[in-house]
Amino acid sequence: MADVAAKERKILVAVDESEESSYALSWCIENIITGNSNDTLILLYSIPPRVVYSTLDGTGEKDHPEGYLFSSDILATMERYSSEVAQCVMEKAKRACEALNGVKVETIVEHGDARDVICQAAEKLHVDLLVMGSHGYGVIKRAFLGSVSNHCAQNVKCPVLIVKKPKTDGRSK
Amino acid sequence: MADVAAKERKILVAVDESEESSYALSWCIENIITGNSNDTLILLYSIPPRVVYSTLDGTGEKDHPEGYLFSSDILATMERYSSEVAQCVMEKAKRACEALNGVKVETIVEHGDARDVICQAAEKLHVDLLVMGSHGYGVIKRAFLGSVSNHCAQNVKCPVLIVKKPKTDGRSK
Repeated sequence: MADVAAKERKILVAVDESEESSYALSWCIENIITGNSNDTLILLYSIPPRVVYSTLDGTGEKDHPEGYLFSSDILATMERYSSEVAQCVMEKAKRACEALNGVKVETIVEHGDARDVICQAAEKLHVDLLVMGSHGYGVIKRAFLGSVSNHCAQNVKCPVLIVKKPKTDGRSK
Repeated sequence: MADVAAKERKILVAVDESEESSYALSWCIENIITGNSNDTLILLYSIPPRVVYSTLDGTGEKDHPEGYLFSSDILATMERYSSEVAQCVMEKAKRACEALNGVKVETIVEHGDARDVICQAAEKLHVDLLVMGSHGYGVIKRAFLGSVSNHCAQNVKCPVLIVKKPKTDGRSK
């Protein structure tokens, strides 16, 4: 298996602010990435789109019943908040990778629906593996949140690793 | 990362007669299993149930329109054939694992729907990772065959790695 260490692999890890995502990254580092490898670890964060409208565009809320009406000040604050969350998540993720000697760590922040952002990045970057967390086990949560991993598992062409955070016993052997 | 080699992991690989499955096993061996690890690789094959009825039970085909009517001879032949396929798949899978020094390889053959067999085995054996192939990319194929990996990804509690065979370019870096 000597050639494994010499192989150059690109591993894309979808990160977000959830514990599942943090666990998935840790699991990947411990189980997939080896210290002496030539792996490139790409951390991807997608800032979700918000359906919002500025009051400056002269339209009322009743014209956009599916959206919310905010002033440009509030919109700017929300955007700044999103960017700060993204930065915070990325810094936390990079700290988790600090122990990895010889592994290149890159970060990408994109705006858009996580499904599209992740699938497009996997395709565009020709990654060898996509790693992502799975959100919760409940039927409701799975229906809304878990569908991101389902969607990606069905649509990307590379191997996909879906990591679930252990529920109770914190098994981490 | 020195502790990675010392960690004991149980890796369950669902194998079948498809090329996707064979590729998934090879990918797992090259990318997940390390030569000096204490991994246990468990190869699982599920013999699918057949909706068949013997002529000896006195019922006609019109009473069981969803099934087929076979003599007990044919049933025995079919069962023998299924077992031979299972054995053949397992031998091929074991040969793929031969280069793995120090890795224990176990095999399990179970009768039943692949979804249930795989999920139950992952649960019962407390595996650290489930590896399986994904069958094709077409809408029709995915609707029927790919649903096994979807189902398992949603229902097992451990990390799940779904490996897709590259379509055309045979990229294996």
